Amino acid sequence: MKKEVLFALLAVTSSYSSLAAAEQNLTPVINAAGKTLEFDWPTIRVGTGEYDEGPTGVTVFHFQKRSLVAIDARGGGPGTVNSDYLRLGYEVPKLDAIVLSGGSWYGLESTTAVSTALKDDGLRDARWGNVALAVGSIIYDFGERRLNEVYPDKKLAQAAFRAARPGVFPLGAYGAGRMAKSGGYFNCNAHSGQGGAFKQIGELKIAAFTVVNAMGVITKRDGSIAACFREASWPKNLSAFDLADGTPDSRKPGWTGHALDEDQRANTTISLLVVNQKMSYAELNRLAVQVHTSMARGIQPFATEFDGDVLYAVSTGELEKKEGSTVTPVDIGVIAADVMWDAILASVPEQPAAPKANPRLKLSARELERYVGEYTFSEFARLRITTRDNKLFAQATGPRDVFALKRTAAIELQPVARNEFTVPSRYPLLVKFPAPGQVILNPGRWQQSGHRAP
Amino acid sequence: MKKEVLFALLAVTSSYSSLAAAEQNLTPVINAAGKTLEFDWPTIRVGTGEYDEGPTGVTVFHFQKRSLVAIDARGGGPGTVNSDYLRLGYEVPKLDAIVLSGGSWYGLESTTAVSTALKDDGLRDARWGNVALAVGSIIYDFGERRLNEVYPDKKLAQAAFRAARPGVFPLGAYGAGRMAKSGGYFNCNAHSGQGGAFKQIGELKIAAFTVVNAMGVITKRDGSIAACFREASWPKNLSAFDLADGTPDSRKPGWTGHALDEDQRANTTISLLVVNQKMSYAELNRLAVQVHTSMARGIQPFATEFDGDVLYAVSTGELEKKEGSTVTPVDIGVIAADVMWDAILASVPEQPAAPKANPRLKLSARELERYVGEYTFSEFARLRITTRDNKLFAQATGPRDVFALKRTAAIELQPVARNEFTVPSRYPLLVKFPAPGQVILNPGRWQQSGHRAP
Amino acid sequence: MKKEVLFALLAVTSSYSSLAAAEQNLTPVINAAGKTLEFDWPTIRVGTGEYDEGPTGVTVFHFQKRSLVAIDARGGGPGTVNSDYLRLGYEVPKLDAIVLSGGSWYGLESTTAVSTALKDDGLRDARWGNVALAVGSIIYDFGERRLNEVYPDKKLAQAAFRAARPGVFPLGAYGAGRMAKSGGYFNCNAHSGQGGAFKQIGELKIAAFTVVNAMGVITKRDGSIAACFREASWPKNLSAFDLADGTPDSRKPGWTGHALDEDQRANTTISLLVVNQKMSYAELNRLAVQVHTSMARGIQPFATEFDGDVLYAVSTGELEKKEGSTVTPVDIGVIAADVMWDAILASVPEQPAAPKANPRLKLSARELERYVGEYTFSEFARLRITTRDNKLFAQATGPRDVFALKRTAAIELQPVARNEFTVPSRYPLLVKFPAPGQVILNPGRWQQSGHRAP
Amino acid sequence: MKKEVLFALLAVTSSYSSLAAAEQNLTPVINAAGKTLEFDWPTIRVGTGEYDEGPTGVTVFHFQKRSLVAIDARGGGPGTVNSDYLRLGYEVPKLDAIVLSGGSWYGLESTTAVSTALKDDGLRDARWGNVALAVGSIIYDFGERRLNEVYPDKKLAQAAFRAARPGVFPLGAYGAGRMAKSGGYFNCNAHSGQGGAFKQIGELKIAAFTVVNAMGVITKRDGSIAACFREASWPKNLSAFDLADGTPDSRKPGWTGHALDEDQRANTTISLLVVNQKMSYAELNRLAVQVHTSMARGIQPFATEFDGDVLYAVSTGELEKKEGSTVTPVDIGVIAADVMWDAILASVPEQPAAPKANPRLKLSARELERYVGEYTFSEFARLRITTRDNKLFAQATGPRDVFALKRTAAIELQPVARNEFTVPSRYPLLVKFPAPGQVILNPGRWQQSGHRAP
Repeated sequence: MKKEVLFALLAVTSSYSSLAAAEQNLTPVINAAGKTLEFDWPTIRVGTGEYDEGPTGVTVFHFQKRSLVAIDARGGGPGTVNSDYLRLGYEVPKLDAIVLSGGSWYGLESTTAVSTALKDDGLRDARWGNVALAVGSIIYDFGERRLNEVYPDKKLAQAAFRAARPGVFPLGAYGAGRMAKSGGYFNCNAHSGQGGAFKQIGELKIAAFTVVNAMGVITKRDGSIAACFREASWPKNLSAFDLADGTPDSRKPGWTGHALDEDQRANTTISLLVVNQKMSYAELNRLAVQVHTSMARGIQPFATEFDGDVLYAVSTGELEKKEGSTVTPVDIGVIAADVMWDAILASVPEQPAAPKANPRLKLSARELERYVGEYTFSEFARLRITTRDNKLFAQATGPRDVFALKRTAAIELQPVARNEFTVPSRYPLLVKFPAPGQVILNPGRWQQSGHRAP
Repeated sequence: MKKEVLFALLAVTSSYSSLAAAEQNLTPVINAAGKTLEFDWPTIRVGTGEYDEGPTGVTVFHFQKRSLVAIDARGGGPGTVNSDYLRLGYEVPKLDAIVLSGGSWYGLESTTAVSTALKDDGLRDARWGNVALAVGSIIYDFGERRLNEVYPDKKLAQAAFRAARPGVFPLGAYGAGRMAKSGGYFNCNAHSGQGGAFKQIGELKIAAFTVVNAMGVITKRDGSIAACFREASWPKNLSAFDLADGTPDSRKPGWTGHALDEDQRANTTISLLVVNQKMSYAELNRLAVQVHTSMARGIQPFATEFDGDVLYAVSTGELEKKEGSTVTPVDIGVIAADVMWDAILASVPEQPAAPKANPRLKLSARELERYVGEYTFSEFARLRITTRDNKLFAQATGPRDVFALKRTAAIELQPVARNEFTVPSRYPLLVKFPAPGQVILNPGRWQQSGHRAP
Repeated sequence: MKKEVLFALLAVTSSYSSLAAAEQNLTPVINAAGKTLEFDWPTIRVGTGEYDEGPTGVTVFHFQKRSLVAIDARGGGPGTVNSDYLRLGYEVPKLDAIVLSGGSWYGLESTTAVSTALKDDGLRDARWGNVALAVGSIIYDFGERRLNEVYPDKKLAQAAFRAARPGVFPLGAYGAGRMAKSGGYFNCNAHSGQGGAFKQIGELKIAAFTVVNAMGVITKRDGSIAACFREASWPKNLSAFDLADGTPDSRKPGWTGHALDEDQRANTTISLLVVNQKMSYAELNRLAVQVHTSMARGIQPFATEFDGDVLYAVSTGELEKKEGSTVTPVDIGVIAADVMWDAILASVPEQPAAPKANPRLKLSARELERYVGEYTFSEFARLRITTRDNKLFAQATGPRDVFALKRTAAIELQPVARNEFTVPSRYPLLVKFPAPGQVILNPGRWQQSGHRAP
Repeated sequence: MKKEVLFALLAVTSSYSSLAAAEQNLTPVINAAGKTLEFDWPTIRVGTGEYDEGPTGVTVFHFQKRSLVAIDARGGGPGTVNSDYLRLGYEVPKLDAIVLSGGSWYGLESTTAVSTALKDDGLRDARWGNVALAVGSIIYDFGERRLNEVYPDKKLAQAAFRAARPGVFPLGAYGAGRMAKSGGYFNCNAHSGQGGAFKQIGELKIAAFTVVNAMGVITKRDGSIAACFREASWPKNLSAFDLADGTPDSRKPGWTGHALDEDQRANTTISLLVVNQKMSYAELNRLAVQVHTSMARGIQPFATEFDGDVLYAVSTGELEKKEGSTVTPVDIGVIAADVMWDAILASVPEQPAAPKANPRLKLSARELERYVGEYTFSEFARLRITTRDNKLFAQATGPRDVFALKRTAAIELQPVARNEFTVPSRYPLLVKFPAPGQVILNPGRWQQSGHRAP
């Protein structure tokens, strides 16, 4: 059955609003990947699901062997499912899955969806000792960064869960990291993503995964900044420390005349650490605390009011503890902290280059006329394209701004190519008209598509 | 479109298993009620949803004015969504809805479903300051008490949410309390439900709601037991204290030769207290602690390892605090504790009477033959009816026992009426054949239906 | 060396204020007792210390075998030492001693004093694995209930620790319970104390100890009130429920024209539960939660803002867990909850009878004249006795009131005997002049002594 | 009266052991200082007390205006007093003093001592609204680092409290930092201390104080290590990251044939952040979390099992919040995190140089003979000096080793000067005989004195 038909059916048979209907109409993109981390650990299966229409996504970790899990929630706006149960000190491994998701609190549907999928698929059932335990957390990937409110829902999470496979973890703007950003505190607004790293020492395995959607900047081991759309006036080689040291003044150059509003400030880094060594509840909690704390080195600042940072530490228990081992639990913490720093750095995708306006390129009034009209991205965002004096202008007309294209006034779009335009600013903005009646902003992994009403 | 058609469509278009398909095929029963609590408080809307096929259900409280909420989790096996956020000390009212649900951890899907419904319906959106906040908890209503694993899912919770209305709260085996039980610790296994109570003193309003699915017995103010299928050998007028005082011996008479297994032990009481007076975070936490603790009077024992007890305390903030008020926060706690005790007592539904076998009733071999066959309740439970020597016999043949009808041996069904039979025991069991090919166990609010394969 | 000489020496050699000097001058009263609980458990040693001058006191539990301990803090104003360490989930028994003390937060000096005594006495030292661990909590036994601010200090606690012995626990107004009260919420203001109870089932031992200084009333198993100076107008046989049910009105009859001030409201119940069965961290925490919660039956209301309730649960680990034992951890919780209720009830001392004024007794002006003068109880409380018209009058002249004898006006003292007087009221008050220049209020365990300046 | 006389008196009049007597005989050294932080903030008074005989010490912060305080405990072995009260969400400023102390859990006596001093001095009393609130934490400064078990006791803490003054904070090995060490995880074992830093932006004041006794190494902003007795074989310019990256191998070069034992591993960093801006409970908690987490940059690793890290965040509330201020709470967190890093770096004292043996220096048998004998440091440590073949030898003879001078065998002392000797090793060791019958190890701030029995 075609998607359109299903949609029509659902629209008829439900009392859902158009938003719900739109959400139901989306097609999961499963296990998309560019660069990947490959790691040898058969009991950890990873699946990712994305809705390109957001874009947004979810990453599901399915443990083939029930595991022990500890949680360390440190952010000012966390999203969690079943965290109370994790704090009761039980030594019995119960964990089936951890779900990291976009979509802010709406994305918690991803976590409950994996629980029910475990039951629906017969892997777990309703006997108390066999009830599925999926826990998970979310990032805030809405706000000014995209023009719609699509979130990772039950369908997407269950599809990702069912597609989970061992040994491969997509790096960058994939899965839950699809629409992550970093550095908003300093107005860096770099694209971010999900990172992973793996280390094996003898039989000991340590894997770290993180979705870095931090208000802070991602920081390398020499203190330099891994990703930032920099303010033009900044001196070269500014370190994370330099930025912090200048606070609050360092934030001013990047300000566009207004303080950060609530949507821009909302962030979150969610992380998962897995070890194969058997650990007690107290040891696993300690590991969670030590490693989560250590992330303040790779993300600066960290654990602010506007982050909802949560870390899960999991012991699969596949490797028995050895008395007198030279690798003690505190050593594992030290090593894992550096594996996690590697994971943080691996989350950074290649940043899009700023399009350059071509002042020599002259487009005729007729050419420009073809683009004129009102384009709809979602019920929250529309763009009106007009032309005047052989120039193209754009103005947001829906309830919200469209990036640098505000509702307050029409702004000139400068030509980059015959069907590509830009507005020069700190942040890259490419407005492309790929086909009649269609506009794509910033083509690529983070693109936003609009359609002109016929 | 008929349900069957939709189901067929969905079966084709999804990769869901048969369990998921069955779940999707269920029809929400909305706002069913017998006795109700009526209360005058327009900003609290209540909706219930039930699947008769479980039976199981969900109760949604939708606050028309964002409210401040505190959580007190005290049980050994709680289920929670977003509880970490509630513990950060914020004074800003954010709460939209509280969802109490059956279905153990699977039922947490009800809570996330209400969050996303709030967004889908346009009441909330994705701007950080306007993201929906639904929190909720669940009871364990599976195990030996029913023959299937139906749980309150997204569809049911969203339907209940959308049907929420002010001023009416169904009492007893409705909503999340549809399949609740109490007193399992003493093998009482009484049917239980959801209770509510309301008190107004001047302008001050206090409402208490609770789904009592406790391992302990519900206890009246004079110490007597509100509901219990009593062991025949027990002396009359045993109080809750008498039972506790005799522990562990008091439990022995009721034992059927085996200790409680994990499924029988799993319980939970989930509660909600609402006041209209504006309270600070610290005051609301205190209220939650004081009232939740006080529930140990009405439920004995309380907060055990096998309960997942959680209480939410909500201040709608509609009534400003008055300096020097004679009703102080600690007074509110004292009053609310008694309103909650009333709510506990109001949760008890009328218990089914034990069917009495009629030894004079003789059924012919031909009559009995009509009932013979294998009846399926779910993929977990089947019942084989046989006849021998003009007697009817039943034996569970699926993976699990069917109440007193075990997998180990066929047991005689004694006639109550021409198409009704029983097995005398501590717990009522009525086996009714209402129509050819159909069997209903314990007809009524907790009935289980089986069908004979053609 | 005599106490006076030592005091003089200390006064010279220190910069301490007169308050500190007075405190240093007090003589510990060790292991005083009336009724006692006797119990067979050699590894638990109990010592009590009291300062009659308060009166106030401390109770020290010294475990001869390092034990595992869990804490459940539920009151609105707790006092604790090293509670964070107890919540880290360690399974290693570390506990040496638990110290329950009067003196509000000042009494926490008792807990640290026992730690350092363990070291000073060579039982522990400074190697990390052998550092002493004493934890403890306090009750508020100041306020209007006594006329000085003496608190259980280092000297008293160390003396009690060193006098600890197995098998005997004083019941009532001894040790930390010396100046406890209960029922302040309903203006009962009954004298209270420390209670204990013990139960052995086979090899399983359970002991409960509690210092009940509750804002709530102590409640018997039939719901009746164990101790209360009742308002004359109350109907007979008021139950705890009746009082709560009438709130806030039920509090009014007892009001003397003013709301409870901060000092009157401050209370706290601190408790200790000990089992000999080996328990895991999670099991011991659960036991603490279950039993502490259950105390809401015996103390109503419980865990209010003005209580600082804390319970410690200790496993000495002397009895190995048995697989398949009929006494499970949850059973232990049920049993222990009732042992604790017994302990609560055992805390109630005999209440002093109200002195009856003898209207026929006429004292001559000369007799009365002997009592005239200004009596000092402490730097906070003085009483001026005057005579007029062959009647004796009293008025508080220091910074604070002296029970019913206020600073606002002189009140007549009615003769009970030649040297005993009273002011009839809800609460017994006996003013006795035992010797020239001396006054004793309420002679007995709670007496306050004043001296007339020469 | 002379100290000796008082001591004799006390020895007679008490039942204290010799350890307690020795402790009582010590003389507080008050407000000693080398480098200091000077800061303009009259409401914060700081006093330090030290016992040179440990050495060990305490640092008392006395707030002249009751302040709001939040706690963030993150280490695996914390010591705390009254932390439960701090987590109840109250918005009422209650804090009087924060006490940071050496002495492991024994040093908590310092905290309770300051509470009682506040009362004894009449600054607070026993009325509930006016009860003193001192909270505090401790570091572990025993173990192999010193040869006795002296701890900061009631006398020392009260003396430090009474000597507190505004505006001056001693940096390095003073107060609670007197015997701190850092870097034990990598066997650096550098001397450490207490650090402070202050920043003012407009009217906003931020002060950070920390006693760095960390298992991790103190790390500068460029990643280099601030203090370490380095393994000779290490390459130059090893960064904190290099050390961590090599774990567990990087630890091996420094190992002396045995793993760290419990005493060596025990550490702790305790910190205090003060802001003058009025903050809510939630904001102050967030500040504590954000800044404590950020310390993982300056101390690597941080928050391990063998640290007991605790941070207190205090708002004096002297500066009202301004709406729309450009310095938001999250900015304060960013700024404060860097002030805290400055404080960490300021804690490092100048490290003692390694004494160089002078092979040309020949001492006669007669000269050496003068040093021969058995020297007592404490009841835990004695040193036997012998001579043979014109060489001096030392062997520990008490219950514990004396640094590199073990109990297992006599080791040669190589001459540095006529009365100074050394044993070359990774860690400086100077054995000096300053006067007949006296030996001092490592003369200076960390010296240990021994006396030969006559």
